[in-house]
This record gives sequence, structure tokens and C-alpha cells, in this order.
Amino acid sequence: MKPGTTLGHEGIGIVEKIGKAVTNFRHGDPVLISCITSCAKCQYCRKAMYSHCEKGGWVLGHQINGTQAEYVRIPYADTSLYPAPPNIDPEVLVMLSDVLPTGFECGVLNGQIQPADVVAIVGAGPIGLAALLSAQLYSPFKIIMVDHDDFRLSIAKQLGATETVNSDKEDPISKIMQLTNGKGVDTSIEAVGIPATYSICESIITAGGRIANIGVHGQKVDLHLERLWSHNITLTTRLVDTAETPRLLKMVGEGKLALKQLITHRFKLDQIIEAYEVFGDSSKNQALKVIIEP
Amino acid sequence: MKPGTTLGHEGIGIVEKIGKAVTNFRHGDPVLISCITSCAKCQYCRKAMYSHCEKGGWVLGHQINGTQAEYVRIPYADTSLYPAPPNIDPEVLVMLSDVLPTGFECGVLNGQIQPADVVAIVGAGPIGLAALLSAQLYSPFKIIMVDHDDFRLSIAKQLGATETVNSDKEDPISKIMQLTNGKGVDTSIEAVGIPATYSICESIITAGGRIANIGVHGQKVDLHLERLWSHNITLTTRLVDTAETPRLLKMVGEGKLALKQLITHRFKLDQIIEAYEVFGDSSKNQALKVIIEP
Amino acid sequence: MKPGTTLGHEGIGIVEKIGKAVTNFRHGDPVLISCITSCAKCQYCRKAMYSHCEKGGWVLGHQINGTQAEYVRIPYADTSLYPAPPNIDPEVLVMLSDVLPTGFECGVLNGQIQPADVVAIVGAGPIGLAALLSAQLYSPFKIIMVDHDDFRLSIAKQLGATETVNSDKEDPISKIMQLTNGKGVDTSIEAVGIPATYSICESIITAGGRIANIGVHGQKVDLHLERLWSHNITLTTRLVDTAETPRLLKMVGEGKLALKQLITHRFKLDQIIEAYEVFGDSSKNQALKVIIEP
Amino acid sequence: MKPGTTLGHEGIGIVEKIGKAVTNFRHGDPVLISCITSCAKCQYCRKAMYSHCEKGGWVLGHQINGTQAEYVRIPYADTSLYPAPPNIDPEVLVMLSDVLPTGFECGVLNGQIQPADVVAIVGAGPIGLAALLSAQLYSPFKIIMVDHDDFRLSIAKQLGATETVNSDKEDPISKIMQLTNGKGVDTSIEAVGIPATYSICESIITAGGRIANIGVHGQKVDLHLERLWSHNITLTTRLVDTAETPRLLKMVGEGKLALKQLITHRFKLDQIIEAYEVFGDSSKNQALKVIIEP
Repeated sequence: MKPGTTLGHEGIGIVEKIGKAVTNFRHGDPVLISCITSCAKCQYCRKAMYSHCEKGGWVLGHQINGTQAEYVRIPYADTSLYPAPPNIDPEVLVMLSDVLPTGFECGVLNGQIQPADVVAIVGAGPIGLAALLSAQLYSPFKIIMVDHDDFRLSIAKQLGATETVNSDKEDPISKIMQLTNGKGVDTSIEAVGIPATYSICESIITAGGRIANIGVHGQKVDLHLERLWSHNITLTTRLVDTAETPRLLKMVGEGKLALKQLITHRFKLDQIIEAYEVFGDSSKNQALKVIIEP
Repeated sequence: MKPGTTLGHEGIGIVEKIGKAVTNFRHGDPVLISCITSCAKCQYCRKAMYSHCEKGGWVLGHQINGTQAEYVRIPYADTSLYPAPPNIDPEVLVMLSDVLPTGFECGVLNGQIQPADVVAIVGAGPIGLAALLSAQLYSPFKIIMVDHDDFRLSIAKQLGATETVNSDKEDPISKIMQLTNGKGVDTSIEAVGIPATYSICESIITAGGRIANIGVHGQKVDLHLERLWSHNITLTTRLVDTAETPRLLKMVGEGKLALKQLITHRFKLDQIIEAYEVFGDSSKNQALKVIIEP
Repeated sequence: MKPGTTLGHEGIGIVEKIGKAVTNFRHGDPVLISCITSCAKCQYCRKAMYSHCEKGGWVLGHQINGTQAEYVRIPYADTSLYPAPPNIDPEVLVMLSDVLPTGFECGVLNGQIQPADVVAIVGAGPIGLAALLSAQLYSPFKIIMVDHDDFRLSIAKQLGATETVNSDKEDPISKIMQLTNGKGVDTSIEAVGIPATYSICESIITAGGRIANIGVHGQKVDLHLERLWSHNITLTTRLVDTAETPRLLKMVGEGKLALKQLITHRFKLDQIIEAYEVFGDSSKNQALKVIIEP
Repeated sequence: MKPGTTLGHEGIGIVEKIGKAVTNFRHGDPVLISCITSCAKCQYCRKAMYSHCEKGGWVLGHQINGTQAEYVRIPYADTSLYPAPPNIDPEVLVMLSDVLPTGFECGVLNGQIQPADVVAIVGAGPIGLAALLSAQLYSPFKIIMVDHDDFRLSIAKQLGATETVNSDKEDPISKIMQLTNGKGVDTSIEAVGIPATYSICESIITAGGRIANIGVHGQKVDLHLERLWSHNITLTTRLVDTAETPRLLKMVGEGKLALKQLITHRFKLDQIIEAYEVFGDSSKNQALKVIIEP
């Protein structure tokens, strides 16, 4: 069990030392580290909204040290770790820490994707691609991927996108309206986090549709209620809860989700500076997820 | 059966002449006129989203003549009219044409109000008050009404508001955060249609909460995704479908909703100019719904 | 804080001694004891189905000692106890241990009661009456109570039943069909646990309706699929999860549910044999819930 | 456009003569005939429960003449016919009249199948196989098919069953419990209609699971509430509404559902007696759906 983490607050590992209250794990257990820490007892954990756990939530690499280290402390281990299934490639398992649950919960579930729906995903980075993979669990009719990077769009094609739109080469809004005979999409998923990409998602939504935001935004966006007030739309935001991790572990264990293709680079822990440089120019380096081995 | 309409695209009436395809009504039937016309056959009508009916929707007083007249033509009468129950006061029945279904569907149902929830309704006009009345069908814990008109807030108090906030006299956001111990509300309902009131609704929403827009907006608003992206919120918009009218007719028939209090003025059809003048300065005249009698 | 328990696995108490892993409670805290024990960590607890907790569930008075004692041991205290709100009468609070969550979760929520629905509850014992009280949180149009005990039916009337049917004096099926103009009820709630009462629930259900079983049955019943296969019905069973206890504590704290009327008798702990004798002939003694004081 | 019907109340055809109220179709249009007739205007049609349409529902081949004829009269044609998409093989299209919507609505949707679920379908006839095909739209983890006919089970294997159980050769209950490590299935679908097969479905359901009945039953079954009362299960029945036909037409048009394999025999209309003889001993003749060409 080698690959330990990624650039991000994700990781897998081996249990080394156990707190007194921990009952689910033993020394030596291989584990998946959820990016979200859950105390299990607070009002939010009791309704499976672990993202807002009163004592946990997004703390790893945020409020306490993260997983890019040789040893990692995981609070509330019983409900923040998952046993690593022996049938999952460790590299793939790392994708279950954050990327896959985020794409699935914030994009696919919040976007209420149903069989025969038409979906657009704006942003073909690792999260957008994880949404693309897991959207297919619900058999939509079309999944249109939008990005400005042809490499990422080519990966999207391999992973099941029915159409791709390079937003540097053509206007994504008019292209998508054309692809949908002027009707727009049932669900649009925002997987970038800037006003321009949000704007695409809003502009292409059909009456009765859902806009599912995943992107981490740094500024406000325009919400065109003067147009949308009468369009019966639903817009959601969500910090991943990782409540769906057990279900996703089952799906991945069956080989149903081609997560391995999200991994483009691998570095040793002592090469981490170089890893960041490569990832810093991800477009030039055709980088998606970057694995850091211990 | 006297009161025929309101200032708005609402009304009741007596069936006078019947189209060939109409099978549900006969000459002389007293009827409620829904503000939304439904052809019953299109893809939207088949999923009870009558607001977007391909041949109907919001057409009365919008694309064709409305109900402020002695005779009114109602397309697709079989599924756009409802038999007037004999046990409902005709004045009250007019409130079922638009105001009550709008408050209920766009505000209460989209806002997913559940027992013990804390709700804020911004705007104590007729629609906001209809949301207030119908929200109580789900037994929320608190309903906080916000407006800048003390008369309207006093009516809100009579109709079941647990708290009222005059936004001209105190800051509604800090007041509501204080009333909710800093937690915010589970559901906020926007019933005005301007950026300032939308902003209140967005600012007071708790993690996991719902913002239900009812207001007819004339311009865009700011959506603070830089704050909301991680708050697991749901924002909805909706043009009323009037799909809940049969259920509401039952509730009103039982006297469960004090709609009569929404009516403040009554005029004859030939006084309609005066009616508009009164309504045009609704604040000065303490006007809510204005009935026009034929 | 006096009343400690009931005839049943219910109770309230004062925290006396605390296990090492407990973090939510301190010595001297007044608490509500849930009838369901939840470890918080197992797959069932993580989806709020505490009834099937792998290490807990219904254990009090079943697999370990119950609450009819001077001292009680509560496993997994952090997630099996609730702080007693100071504004709730201790006697009423005992009703939140089992009776109210059971009526609400197994009857009202599983029965999907919605505004304007017609509901029948078969069995006007404490659980059926708790269903009656909490059903009103959703504003049904009618609630018809069925029992063979006029005392219980008279209490039901006081607590909000719109109609009552004494099944010893008239045929409940034909009576309910008559009360519903031959249409039957939207939701029927079984709150007894014998074939005859289940049969009533099944016979009166309208097309598209829900049968919510609460009763603890000792033998199989007949399911008339030869009639029901085409009736689009939903039948549910449920051991109470007490997942709704926090919500119910809020509602009861507001005085919204008249639970006190469920209590008919009070005994000291050393009179418990007598208490059982009284309860053993509950019909003769007009007994509903019997409080045992410590 | 040749194949006109099946043994059953299914069919496709060409519009020949049009009633005055019909607006959606014109002479010469190729159409799919839904097995359920919908008036579009009654209370049931308005909530998409067409099976219980007050003037329609299951009338073809039941209350009026069916589709095994050269000319067929379809009441309420506008909402009981669907335009035949040019990209669907007419033989396959016939499967959308009844078999596919029935398997999907009554089995898959009512059974609430979700990604990673374990499903058992009892009965590998055409309806059970349609449930098998459409269940895969939701990516369950396992689908176990039960039948006593090896031919049907071999087809099930080809169509995506992960396991098959011949109930004549091994005990299906113990086999399924073994295949699920003693846990049972999340959803069991009854697609036969006799007590023995219902009993299997009930015996293998896990706590919190769903039993979805499709079978047309001729007699009552035993419902073991003495075991199930505490198992938090949901049991549903449903006469197909065909409300999902538009969605299914899209999926089938994309070639996502291998319906053609359900068709084993073809006859001319004047050979219909022979067709019934073949179908009458479907096991010996390895017959699934039998097409009748006009």
C-alpha cells in the first residue's frame, strides 16, 4: 500500500497509533482517509451533513495539518476513516478521499441526474471528471463537457462525455443551446469556481432544471433573477459531506468507475516541490491528479 | 356569486358559453379561474408544471386579455377552471386564483418547510401573507415576517407571524440572526422582487437551508458564492403552476386559511381607475388585495 | 425532575455516573432517555436508522435491563440521551422517549401525511393517540380514529380526531367508506398489531394511498394482492428510530402537542405491581400512559 | 412499419382516422399505443397516475377491444398515443407499450433502485427481464434473477443479471441469503404473481429494504408482519401508469436497452391461434414476447 496522498487534502495510509475512544480500527489496518472529519455525535453528523460537523468538517490541511506528511493525525478516526478494501488499487483509492465524493454528492446527487437527462459539466479538471464518471451511474442521455483545455476534453471523451466544447474556440452557451435544439440542459454542474463558468451554467439551464455548484468561488457572481424567477430552477451549493463514501467504495470495488485515468503524475514525498511546480502549470504539463508516494 | 376579479390576473365567474372540446363544465357553472392556463397535453402539463405549458402558462392579462372585464375567454377551460365549491365565500375564492397557490407552491413547498423549522418571509404583501398562512400547514416553529410597513406587519401578526421586523427601523439581518441565536433560518422566502430583499434572504440562511424566491425581479442580484459554496444551500425559483389548487380548495373549504383578511378594498368594475389609484399608493391606503365586483 | 419512567422502556433521569467516552453530558444533567440506543458509528446509525444499530437499537428492557429501576445504565449515552429542555414538564418529557417518536415516525412520516389528506388511525391507545397528535403537524383534512373503547375515542375527539368509529358498534370499513364518499383514505395507520385491525387498514385505502404499520404483530396477516396489485399502494413497517426526537423536542417545547392528556395514572416505583394490574385491564380502568415515579 | 401488436394489450400502428378533439396527431402518423389510456383531465391524470384515469386506465383489451386487430380505436388519442421515433425499430417499439414501462415503473422506480444496491428479481418472463434491463439505468451492484426455466435465466444472464438462481434446483431464499452474506437484498421485485414467488421476495429483504410488486395476483398472500413489523421495509404495488414512456422512448432511441432480445417469436395476424398455442407452452417453446404482424 504505497501512494499516500495527493496535492490536496486527500490520502490513504496504515493505522499506526490509536486513540482510546477508537473501536473500529486496529494497528496495521490499511485505511482511506476522508477529506471530511466527522465527530458522529453533533446535530449535523446525525443528519449525515458531515461537512458542517461542529468539531470536524473540513479540518485536514485547513484548520490542522493535512496529509502531505509521513505521519498524519486523524481526529474522530472511527467515523473519518474507512477500511481500505483489498480489491481496490491504492492509487485509485486515494480518489475516494475527496475528488469522487465531491463530484458525486455536490454535482450528481445535488444535480438530481436521472435517466435520459441532458447534463452539462463546466470544468474538466479532476472534480469535473469525477462528476462525469459518477453521473453515468444514472444513465443520462447526454453529458456535454466544457473546458478550454483540449487535453482535458480528450480525457473527458474517453471517460464518457457524449460531446465536448472548447470554450476558447467556440461560444459554449450558443453551442450547448444548439446541441439541445434550443432547449438547454436539465442539469448544469459548475466545477471551476469563477463568475464566467457559473454564468455558462446559468445561461444554459432549461425550465425546471438544476444548477449544481461544486466550484470553490473567490467572489460573488451575478444571479439573473430577472430571467430566472419564472424558470422553476433549483440551484444548489455543497461542501462535500463524504456521506456517500461507503456506496462509492462498493462501486469502485466493482471496477465501475475508471478513476485511474484521473492520475497523470506520480512523485515521491521528497519531490513535492517539483510536484507543485508541475501542477502549477497543469495545462502545459497535462496534469490532472498528482500522486505523492511516501 | 359577485366578486369577479382583483387588480391582477385573477378571477371567478359564471360559465356563459362553452367551446366544443370542453367536457367538464356546463352553462351556469360557477368557477374559479386559475391564473395559469393549462392545455393538459404538452410535456410540461404532463408533469404538472403548468406554468410552462406550451400553449398556455401565464397568458391571462399577459399574452391575451385578462379578467378585468364583464366577459372573459378562458382557453383550455377544462383544465384551467375549477368548479367553485359552494362552501367558499366568493371573495375568498378569488384568492385561490393566484395569490394563495403562489405563496404555497413557490414559497412553502419549494422552501420545503417542515415541522419545527424556522422560517423568514421577506415581504408582507398579499403573496408574502399567503405564504405565511400556508406555511402554517406544516407547523414551523417560528415565522419571522420582514417588511417596512407597520400596517402589513400588524396583519402578519394577526395571521400567525411569530415575530415581525420592520426593515426601516432596524437592520433585518442582524435582528434575525439575533432571533435565531446566530444560526439563521431554515427557509427564507423572497416575496418582493428587488436586490435588497433578496440580499436579506441570502444573508440569513443557515447551513443546509433553502431560499425560495417568489418575487418578480426586474434586475439581477448578487449571489455570494464565495460564501455560499460551502453552505449546502438550495435556492429555487418558480412561476406558480397552480398544480396545488385542488388541495388548497379543500383546505380553504374547511376554513383552515384566513384568506379573507387579505382583502382590504372593494370596488365596482366602473370604479377601476379609482381602485388602481388606491392600490398605487398601497402603503398610504393600507391596501392589500383589492376586489373588483362586476 | 420527578417522573422517571412508564410501563414500557421509556424514561427520564439525572446523569449520575459517566463513562469515559461520553463527552456530551455531565454529572447532574437532567436527560431524556431514548427507547432506542444508538452507537453513532455503524452503517445504520450513519443513515439515521438507529433502530437497527449494530450494537444498540431496541436493547433497553429487551436485551439489557430497562428503565423501571432506581439506576439505569445507558450504553452509548452521547447519542442515546438528550438534554432535558427546562421548559418541558417532566411528565410530558417521558412521552418523548418512545410513544411520540413512534407515532410520528412510523405512522405520520411513513404514512406521508400531507395537507388536505384524509387519514384513518386504527387503535386509540397511547401510540395511536401520539400519531393523532403529530399527524396534525401536517394539517390533514380529516383524521378518523377507530377503536372499540369509548373512553379512548372520547380522548381522541379531544385531541383532534375529526371523526371516531367504535368498531364494536358499527362496521368500521363500511363506516369509513361512507365518511369518504366511497373513496377511502389517503393514509391508514395500524396502531394495534392484530390481523383484524390490519385488515381494516388495508380495506379502506384509496388508490395511491399509504398503509403505515406501527403495531407489534404476533402473527402473519393476509395481504390481498389479488385486489391491491393494481391499486398503487405503499405499505410500510418501522421500528422507531427516534431520529426525529430533536425536532419533536422543539415542537413539544412550544406546547404544540397536548401530550399531557395521554397520562392517566401515576404510581410510585414501589407500587409498580399495582400499576401493572391497573394497566393490565386498561379498558376498565380507562388507562393510557402510566407514569412511575422514582 | 410492420409489427402491430403482441399477445397482450400492446401495439403500434398508423393513424387512419382522427377524432375532432385530437390535435397532436395527423393522418398517416406512425404511433406507439400505450397500454394505458389517459383522459388528461381527471384528478388522477393531473398527478400522472394514468393507471387510475377516471375515463381510461387499463381499458384496451379489458373494457373495450384491444389491439389484436387490423383497426383499433384509441380513446383520448392525444394523451394515449406517442409519436413513433424514426430511429426505433418497430419491433422494439412495441415493447414500450406495456412491458418496459411496467418493469421500470412498478419494479425499478417503486423499488427505488440506487447505485450499489443489491436487487433480486423473481420471475424472468418479459416483465421481469424488462425490469432487469431498466434496473441497470441506476447501476445497482448486483442483480440476482430467480426463475425455474433455464432458458429464461440464460437470457437474463445475457441481459445483465449478475447471478441467476433456478428455484427448481436450489432453494432461492437460502441461496440469495448466501449470495448476500446473510444480509438480504435492498430491493426485491415480484414479477410472477403467485404466493410462492411473493414469499421469496418477502423472505430475502434486508432491513430498510423495498419489495416492489409487479405480478398480477389471483389470490391473497401471507404478509409476515410478526417478523417485518420491525424491519423498516416498504412494499409497493402499482398498475403501470406509463408516465415514464417519454423518458423511456429517449433511452431506447439511444440503443441503451437491449429490448430486441425479449422477442422470440413472430406470427402473422391470421396465425394468431397458433401464436397463442406456442405462447401457451412458453417454457417448452422458449417463448418470451410474441409479435403479431398485421
